[in-house]
Amino acid sequence: MSIDRLEGALAPVVTPFDENLAPDAERFTGMCHWLLGQGVKLAVFGTTSEANSLSLKEKISLLERLLDSGVEPDNIMPGAGLCSLSETVEFTAVAAGLGCPRVLMLPPFYYKKVSDDGLYGYMAEVIDRVGREDLQIYLYHFPAMSQTPYSLDLIDRLVKEFPNAIAGIKDSAGKWEETAAFNAAGWPDFRVFCGSERFLLQNMKAGGAGCISATANVNPAAIAALCSGWREADAAERQRDLTGIRDLFESAPMVAAVKAAVAICSGDAAWSRPRPPLMPLSREQCEALRAGLDATGFKMPGIG
Amino acid sequence: MSIDRLEGALAPVVTPFDENLAPDAERFTGMCHWLLGQGVKLAVFGTTSEANSLSLKEKISLLERLLDSGVEPDNIMPGAGLCSLSETVEFTAVAAGLGCPRVLMLPPFYYKKVSDDGLYGYMAEVIDRVGREDLQIYLYHFPAMSQTPYSLDLIDRLVKEFPNAIAGIKDSAGKWEETAAFNAAGWPDFRVFCGSERFLLQNMKAGGAGCISATANVNPAAIAALCSGWREADAAERQRDLTGIRDLFESAPMVAAVKAAVAICSGDAAWSRPRPPLMPLSREQCEALRAGLDATGFKMPGIG
Repeated sequence: MSIDRLEGALAPVVTPFDENLAPDAERFTGMCHWLLGQGVKLAVFGTTSEANSLSLKEKISLLERLLDSGVEPDNIMPGAGLCSLSETVEFTAVAAGLGCPRVLMLPPFYYKKVSDDGLYGYMAEVIDRVGREDLQIYLYHFPAMSQTPYSLDLIDRLVKEFPNAIAGIKDSAGKWEETAAFNAAGWPDFRVFCGSERFLLQNMKAGGAGCISATANVNPAAIAALCSGWREADAAERQRDLTGIRDLFESAPMVAAVKAAVAICSGDAAWSRPRPPLMPLSREQCEALRAGLDATGFKMPGIG
Repeated sequence: MSIDRLEGALAPVVTPFDENLAPDAERFTGMCHWLLGQGVKLAVFGTTSEANSLSLKEKISLLERLLDSGVEPDNIMPGAGLCSLSETVEFTAVAAGLGCPRVLMLPPFYYKKVSDDGLYGYMAEVIDRVGREDLQIYLYHFPAMSQTPYSLDLIDRLVKEFPNAIAGIKDSAGKWEETAAFNAAGWPDFRVFCGSERFLLQNMKAGGAGCISATANVNPAAIAALCSGWREADAAERQRDLTGIRDLFESAPMVAAVKAAVAICSGDAAWSRPRPPLMPLSREQCEALRAGLDATGFKMPGIG
């Protein structure tokens, strides 16, 4: 069975925690529905989602709750690259079984300086063990966090051996030349998502598929609009606006800043609470973020 | 309830995998009994154990099998620092419930550049949620792998707030001045283990508690002997011998090299199989390791 590959704008949805630091499924599903209404799809369990501060069980439970709330599974790209081969296989199989066979996959991220042969072996085992024809793996390339890059050579081997399963990449390396190289590689129907809307217009012009960005949690409609309207006359102007907003968030710790902005935007302070080891923004950081957003004239739309 | 803190030599026991890459509990328990007979205790689920390539369920199952095989729980220091707060708490509580409240704890290792305040908050939550008076956390300081050091300031805060729970450190940073600083800090009954037997004699002279070293899987008796006999006249000579062996292993990828040596030593090739993303030594690396060991006159004792 062949299914469409994903494209467009996706948000790595922030995960709300209650006062006991447990995931808050109700706020989570509310946020997801709001994001869909703004025109972005849901890359749940990404870095911005604090996915690696959640247990396997917590992720499965949140995904089930999200689907129970009526979200169409085709709109979801769960982050499924966990630390171990066994848990990556388990979670990917569960997600695919729930109707979400398009997954964003970090490489295994504890062991450092692993070889391309080792990473190839790992991905081959994941694909073989999940054993689904409809599996679509989007490689999550984020060397600053995972410390383990997906090299061009490795991707080339993977695409040639698993042309159905290896569907694309999210490039969070933050260097345009790398995103450009992924687009230029000529892999058939390989979907390149930039990991920051800073590169969105460039990525679309180069043949990219879209954008999966932390700040799509707070600026979803404008990011989605440039994703679909990048051929319009005002695209460069829209890109400048997006970049201006992005800059504000990059001046603070990103996950905490996005959660703070969602809290401000929704009037619901609970959103600002990350799970340790991450910390909320300080009052000063929060005020600076708010002032920066005000100064750009950026309007934060109400959530929920 | 107050219980003794650990000291001496411990091996981060290598984890055997069967042909389907599943953990092999029988070989694992056999190895553990052999190591105990050689005079070292069991730091199961360390880096050398490929612990972060195992699932939570696989670790619990191996620990249960090990205890069922008759190993005294006081001889076990399970690695219990997983990626998320929830799973670290779950596994630590399970291990302590099985009689192993002395655990080696990596910091949360996905998010990078986390603050000391965030790490303090994480450890405080772990201690509070596990909620056992007999909990003893040995901090696993391995910046090259976790990318998240335990700073002197952070440890000082933790020891002062949780003098019972924060029991010591395994220092795998590989710099003697750091190990010396941990010993010199003056924290009451704080146990400092060097992460390589290269520093064993220095560590014992500085007041350290012992050594938790990958190569204790293949050279356990000699490491244990220097640990207990460091005041003897031949201690410096013993240290030179240990360091000579250690050098051989550091010239190859450590986990694969230790597994290869165990395979050679036991005549059981299955030991040489790591789980992806790690790879076995190449034939050339394996021959070089064997030749190096032969040249030193090192005798590898039979296993099991």
